[in-house]
Amino acid sequence: MQSLTELEQLAIDAAFNLTDGHPRQTLTTSQATIVQRLPVLFAEAAVRPLADLEYECKESFFSLLGQHSAPIADGRVFSVYSSSVATMAVAAAFAESGSRVGLLHPTFDNLHDLMNRVLPVVPIEEGLRPTERVRAAVEGGASVLFLTTPNNPTGQVVNEHELREYVTLCLEYDLTLCLDTSFRGFDPRAQFDHYSLLESSGVRYIIVEDSGKLWPVLEMKLGFVAVSRHWRKQVEHALSDILLSVSPLVLALVRELSRDSMAGGMQKMQQLISRNRRIVSDAVRSLSDVRVLDEEARVSVLRLEFESSDLATEVREELHLTGMHVLPCDQFHWSDPSQGRRTLRIALSRDESVIQRLVTTLIDVMSSRKLESVA
Amino acid sequence: MQSLTELEQLAIDAAFNLTDGHPRQTLTTSQATIVQRLPVLFAEAAVRPLADLEYECKESFFSLLGQHSAPIADGRVFSVYSSSVATMAVAAAFAESGSRVGLLHPTFDNLHDLMNRVLPVVPIEEGLRPTERVRAAVEGGASVLFLTTPNNPTGQVVNEHELREYVTLCLEYDLTLCLDTSFRGFDPRAQFDHYSLLESSGVRYIIVEDSGKLWPVLEMKLGFVAVSRHWRKQVEHALSDILLSVSPLVLALVRELSRDSMAGGMQKMQQLISRNRRIVSDAVRSLSDVRVLDEEARVSVLRLEFESSDLATEVREELHLTGMHVLPCDQFHWSDPSQGRRTLRIALSRDESVIQRLVTTLIDVMSSRKLESVA
Repeated sequence: MQSLTELEQLAIDAAFNLTDGHPRQTLTTSQATIVQRLPVLFAEAAVRPLADLEYECKESFFSLLGQHSAPIADGRVFSVYSSSVATMAVAAAFAESGSRVGLLHPTFDNLHDLMNRVLPVVPIEEGLRPTERVRAAVEGGASVLFLTTPNNPTGQVVNEHELREYVTLCLEYDLTLCLDTSFRGFDPRAQFDHYSLLESSGVRYIIVEDSGKLWPVLEMKLGFVAVSRHWRKQVEHALSDILLSVSPLVLALVRELSRDSMAGGMQKMQQLISRNRRIVSDAVRSLSDVRVLDEEARVSVLRLEFESSDLATEVREELHLTGMHVLPCDQFHWSDPSQGRRTLRIALSRDESVIQRLVTTLIDVMSSRKLESVA
Repeated sequence: MQSLTELEQLAIDAAFNLTDGHPRQTLTTSQATIVQRLPVLFAEAAVRPLADLEYECKESFFSLLGQHSAPIADGRVFSVYSSSVATMAVAAAFAESGSRVGLLHPTFDNLHDLMNRVLPVVPIEEGLRPTERVRAAVEGGASVLFLTTPNNPTGQVVNEHELREYVTLCLEYDLTLCLDTSFRGFDPRAQFDHYSLLESSGVRYIIVEDSGKLWPVLEMKLGFVAVSRHWRKQVEHALSDILLSVSPLVLALVRELSRDSMAGGMQKMQQLISRNRRIVSDAVRSLSDVRVLDEEARVSVLRLEFESSDLATEVREELHLTGMHVLPCDQFHWSDPSQGRRTLRIALSRDESVIQRLVTTLIDVMSSRKLESVA
């Protein structure tokens, strides 16, 4: 079976690429102004100390996302080329310490694949409550509980009350709490100050953060790894195998984009996603044999569930013929792909016109199928 | 023991950072013009198909380095965030196939560290001839022979005759030949068309190439992995765990910088390195208890060997006190650090003024030490 990223790679130059969760909408006016200033940012980044650029970038980015207590000043937030590279370093640190990981199921398959190359991974079903998830992890022999919040593709968020529960339970059962929060920019409910809770509790934790989903700046992005004291040395060492530093220019760019988002850009982006979600939901409501899942979700992807796996496959193939690519969900269910067979994932971080086009095509495909079955 | 990159990280904002092999000299006029055009390149990269940008970038970069037969058109050259990320993916593919690697010794420690996290690594001494190296690999149970050419820090190059020997021997003993050619831009002797030989031979091979050492553009860089048919699927799959694509903007930038280098920029850079090497060599010739190693080397680093390990340590500490950071060589000898204790490595990809300053300080340090021992 191909990985989700391999499927996304096939669609990357498609007429209508609705597969990957990377932002591909048109730049806003103020974002375009920042891009115009790249040579100025280059000149700045070339002469200023890297430590200052790193600090300003992290301060802006983590503030934007409400993470005011992230241990930046204590040197426990590291910048990396991307969240996946961050995850590789985290996996290496876990493997080195002989960890076994309990990982949310479903979630984006590369989290499983990167971990599973170097250590054992057991599934933790998303339907479970915190106490049940922790129990499943402990019973599976895991020393790490790895959650994605908001989750990709379901958009489910660990709220403040639940995070408190996880912290208490992880302390009780001696687990490390590992979070991937790459999609938190889309959902204000995931922007309460996680680090305040984590730092004061003394729990062992690692959080992977990501700038890559937020701004359509051609993959000029950063991943970040924030760690509790316990994990500092091992993660820092694993990262030093991979990189000396990220690009000072990208640090300056992410700082500028964060500041712009704080000044209103974030709301604009959330409005775009919400509008695009509504366009799809409204259209799907008029169709039979298909429904929108995850009504509470605010992330930049949306799941459609079809009446049967055959129908889901058929629709995906028909869309494909019109140059419109969407993702099957089998691979998100890394432990049992059959659970995802009736579901397709649609990327929403696109211009509204692209989403309108998808909806029109989807209605066409579903209607012509109905006509066929009548005929 | 800290890794070389950890030592480099300590020096990154030093007044005189002569540790890392990353290019930190002032941009040439034509490079500065390319940087000024970043917004134009962004506009281009935002609308053009990624496949076209990838192709143009690879064509320019590989041509610049004389690698005209690289299997770009056959889809066997992959672009990655950096050469280290490329190496991680290669290590994952090797580990998956149960490989054991015979790795050149000495070489940059992160090659060993990245490999050794996931598979067994045996040292192949640099002093050996090709037949002896292959024999050492086979006797060590290796299925991969991993060489760095030009080597970092010694600058030793695998010439065309030797590459032919390796290919023949690897075919005979059923070994995969893996090369890291990150430093080949500095040395025309490493720019004969490796792929012509490799592709026509049918040998299993992987080459990691790197744009990151060539241009001082704030870590806006790419790594590349080129593979023989045998390794294609595994490497491609391992890479898909890590990234969807590199930045289209960086693809356009590396294309432009490659073209500029082809139009004379490469010679300018080689002249800078050669001038800097001469400045150090000339000064060191007048000093006792220290000599320049690797007289044939043309890479952007240079090794100084001191009369004793105590002296090397003392000089490094004295330089440090003046804000001048250089690297110890212990860690390059990843299998036996004691072999590197008398040696320091100096980065040459710097403005001439920085190298002049190093030389003045080095002469001061060595002379005051002499005066002390006389007194």
